[in-house]
Amino acid sequence: MEFTKMHGLGNSYIYVNEYNYSFNEEELSPLAVAVSDTNTGIGSDGLILIGPSTSCDVRMRIFNKDGSEAKNCGNGLRCVARYAYEHGLVSEPSFTIETKSGPVSCRVEEHSKVISNVTVDMGNPHLLRKNIPMQGKGEERVIAEPYTLENGKDSGTLTAVSMGNPHAVFFVDDIASAPVESWGPQIEKDERFPESVNVEFVEVVSSTEVHFRVWERGSGITQACGTGACAAVVASVLNGHCKQGEPVLVHLLGGDLTITWTEEGTVLMTGPAEDICTGFYIRD
Amino acid sequence: MEFTKMHGLGNSYIYVNEYNYSFNEEELSPLAVAVSDTNTGIGSDGLILIGPSTSCDVRMRIFNKDGSEAKNCGNGLRCVARYAYEHGLVSEPSFTIETKSGPVSCRVEEHSKVISNVTVDMGNPHLLRKNIPMQGKGEERVIAEPYTLENGKDSGTLTAVSMGNPHAVFFVDDIASAPVESWGPQIEKDERFPESVNVEFVEVVSSTEVHFRVWERGSGITQACGTGACAAVVASVLNGHCKQGEPVLVHLLGGDLTITWTEEGTVLMTGPAEDICTGFYIRD
Repeated sequence: MEFTKMHGLGNSYIYVNEYNYSFNEEELSPLAVAVSDTNTGIGSDGLILIGPSTSCDVRMRIFNKDGSEAKNCGNGLRCVARYAYEHGLVSEPSFTIETKSGPVSCRVEEHSKVISNVTVDMGNPHLLRKNIPMQGKGEERVIAEPYTLENGKDSGTLTAVSMGNPHAVFFVDDIASAPVESWGPQIEKDERFPESVNVEFVEVVSSTEVHFRVWERGSGITQACGTGACAAVVASVLNGHCKQGEPVLVHLLGGDLTITWTEEGTVLMTGPAEDICTGFYIRD
Repeated sequence: MEFTKMHGLGNSYIYVNEYNYSFNEEELSPLAVAVSDTNTGIGSDGLILIGPSTSCDVRMRIFNKDGSEAKNCGNGLRCVARYAYEHGLVSEPSFTIETKSGPVSCRVEEHSKVISNVTVDMGNPHLLRKNIPMQGKGEERVIAEPYTLENGKDSGTLTAVSMGNPHAVFFVDDIASAPVESWGPQIEKDERFPESVNVEFVEVVSSTEVHFRVWERGSGITQACGTGACAAVVASVLNGHCKQGEPVLVHLLGGDLTITWTEEGTVLMTGPAEDICTGFYIRD
């Protein structure tokens, strides 16, 4: 089976062209587990299939390394966009990708035949408490709401943003000492978030630059979380640190993203998508 | 750069043919680090180069995922043997491989054009205390020597074997409850082993079959340790559980090996070497 391995900020997947292969539905989950294993497979965060779509220009399907199917992945989307454009599955640099969570618009930036970055429209944030979802008083947005940790001593203020998945954003003075590992797992499991929550820490450098660390629900500390970076910038605008309509450079552990919460309401994410290797995987 | 990824019992490396590429010495360590990274590279335990030798049929060089150069690796040797034979770098199924720790004889088993197993001559065990090396009374072999853990309560009997690297072997009644995680790190750092030590637990099923778990020095619990499996069988013979000259099936977490401590004194290791994928790695 031919494959390409790509990564966006260290979030790596095995990409397979469904125009060339047709899979039985039941073989996809075990195939994702097999190729993702670093010891006996290629090694990745999962498997992404790129195939024909009836509603968009191409379709992507994501299978995590545990075999479960994911709805969407910002870092994966950028790689799919690059792959589709480089492999001639689309002819124009702007096109649409069908995902389990709906259609996504994207644009590949090409300079002198070199693809530098990919911009993906991550959609509108959902801000009402019930749409996070988060329990508590009031039906309004959750902006700078006081939050006290289990020990009754540590506290901060929480801004809640859904980018299709729930995020709890805290602002800190120094990102290097942000309590990602201590607060993250506690807040992730807070009963007020019925679907659990991703926990983000943001240090504002200026109105156009922030540092970012994330505790991802179910995964813990990761190098990069595309929706989390979007949520961080939306939260920064809501708290008056950044401006809607202006691009914000977000520094993540795995690299940089540029996020714009547009005046129209959608969040644009621009970042790298990198080829690692192409090859032939030997299936049993 | 063309590569093949292979594994022996889950111990995976990126294999590159030095007959096709010539590398500068200083680029090898960073290249090993880069290709081994699962997030931004291919993902593996390291990089192995297979090239021409002046003293043997082929030469192998191993670079760990941290960039350091290793002397030898049993699981890697089997894969090198398969690679060299399959790619026509040698014409006969029995040949020699040059390693940093000396020449190694190997034999590829081929049945109906399918390579099933590879046998590697792992050399003679070293059994005198000073050659383990292990401090203590007496210059003789260390067989079933009483050993008490730091807590003063837990104890067992230790048999010490060097296969070029030091091993401390303990026999247990039930491998599933072997104290690999609790005893391993303590014994590894015991001052009596000036070069540190790999710690192995062995459950004897019969004179031709044992179960095996390992705590590798510097790595902790691993799926498979080729030299450890050899040491386990040598220790089993020394303690009267197995017989010299007879093959012993060793069950490791990552799969099975067959080990024979021959009458001539060398230890033969037979096991699988599997292709995962071939491809082209995109270097910066």
